[in-house]
Amino acid sequence: MKRNYRAVLQYEGTRYQGWQKQISTDNTIQGKLEALLTKMAGENVEVNSSGRTDAGVHAYGQVISFACDVDMSPEEIRDYMNQYLPEDIGVLSVVVAGERFHARLNATGKIYRYRVLNSSIPRVFDRKYVFQVPEELDLEAMKVGISYLEGKHDFKAFTVKKNTKKSTVRTIHEIKMEQVNEELVFTFYGDGFLYHMVRILMGTLLEIGQHRREPESILEAFESGERVKAGFLAPAQGLALMQVFYD
Amino acid sequence: MKRNYRAVLQYEGTRYQGWQKQISTDNTIQGKLEALLTKMAGENVEVNSSGRTDAGVHAYGQVISFACDVDMSPEEIRDYMNQYLPEDIGVLSVVVAGERFHARLNATGKIYRYRVLNSSIPRVFDRKYVFQVPEELDLEAMKVGISYLEGKHDFKAFTVKKNTKKSTVRTIHEIKMEQVNEELVFTFYGDGFLYHMVRILMGTLLEIGQHRREPESILEAFESGERVKAGFLAPAQGLALMQVFYD
Repeated sequence: MKRNYRAVLQYEGTRYQGWQKQISTDNTIQGKLEALLTKMAGENVEVNSSGRTDAGVHAYGQVISFACDVDMSPEEIRDYMNQYLPEDIGVLSVVVAGERFHARLNATGKIYRYRVLNSSIPRVFDRKYVFQVPEELDLEAMKVGISYLEGKHDFKAFTVKKNTKKSTVRTIHEIKMEQVNEELVFTFYGDGFLYHMVRILMGTLLEIGQHRREPESILEAFESGERVKAGFLAPAQGLALMQVFYD
Repeated sequence: MKRNYRAVLQYEGTRYQGWQKQISTDNTIQGKLEALLTKMAGENVEVNSSGRTDAGVHAYGQVISFACDVDMSPEEIRDYMNQYLPEDIGVLSVVVAGERFHARLNATGKIYRYRVLNSSIPRVFDRKYVFQVPEELDLEAMKVGISYLEGKHDFKAFTVKKNTKKSTVRTIHEIKMEQVNEELVFTFYGDGFLYHMVRILMGTLLEIGQHRREPESILEAFESGERVKAGFLAPAQGLALMQVFYD
């Protein structure tokens, strides 16, 4: 009998072409997982995640769902996956999920983290996980920017138009900015994020911190809905999906 | 005029054949540094560190000294080094040191850290920095072992004989064992450590934690001075040189 499973994953995005399976390359997280689970189950297994992550983006708590018929306990599936997956992809847990559980469709919230190394001196052990910004940043101005971004807004200007029919309204419950040694750590908690949204939000906040734009420019970006009114696309490597919430 | 410099380094040991320059390979930390500084200064530059680290061992705060005659400020030397060194070696600081400062001869103490992941589930982001031990460990027994190791002892059994004339007496001021989530983090603070010493101490403590030896076996090892009486050589990847002290 086919069972539906839910698993929590970690991966270092550095080596991969992002989450989503592609015809042109087998070097994607989804591609690696589906190939392995298909081999394990002896039949085609499709893997759904809470959402795609871009090339280079990391995950500490990505959630996936998949269905298959195997004579193994969830712990055995977890250990099998950890044995055969590359060392930069790891499975923290596998549990049997309800029949109708779907990692993306049922997700009700997500936490992303973005790490900025605010120093001119590189940090060897964090080099793949931070975006290094040597210039001094105006944290007070960035806080004002954050206050404009939090809440329910149409984030059309903070994404790349892919499907004009889908709503671009999202709610950001909270953006936390913390100073940890020479790092600025941003935590984005919201009901969902559009394609490239966290990285564009981050680019916009950094431009505010560098006085290359006013915090109030965020209101113009909301109003116009135009991508050009928002900030640059901050590099993928500073970004990590931390947690996904379900009801 | 030649000036003497002191610098603090970080490096990820994974890719290197350890600190010490070798004729057979240029893939050592010392080799990389001397090649770069020799190029910078236009004359042969010798680099001394507080001590050799083995292949695979990391450093968060290795201290080096070198002398050269260049028309650059210490900050310019630091930035030059960070620009041309591989990304897994980084320079945190460079300062002018006293004429007679020598990174190894003047060191009065060191802190090493050893990270044990006490879980059967791998952690993607720590995979190069921890030694994974899935078995349950008897922490109380390990604490007893630690109490025997702390203090001034002849650690002859806890090293590989290299030079029989040199003293193998060292003082361990403190061994701290902390539980951080599913990790056990060991901090070794002492006046100096012999070749392989921290890794053999760690192997001995882990064997005690797995009930493969008694804490009291440490006293026998001290007494006999024989390598076979101490524990196994714990893998390099869990070890990092954190800090070096000078008067």
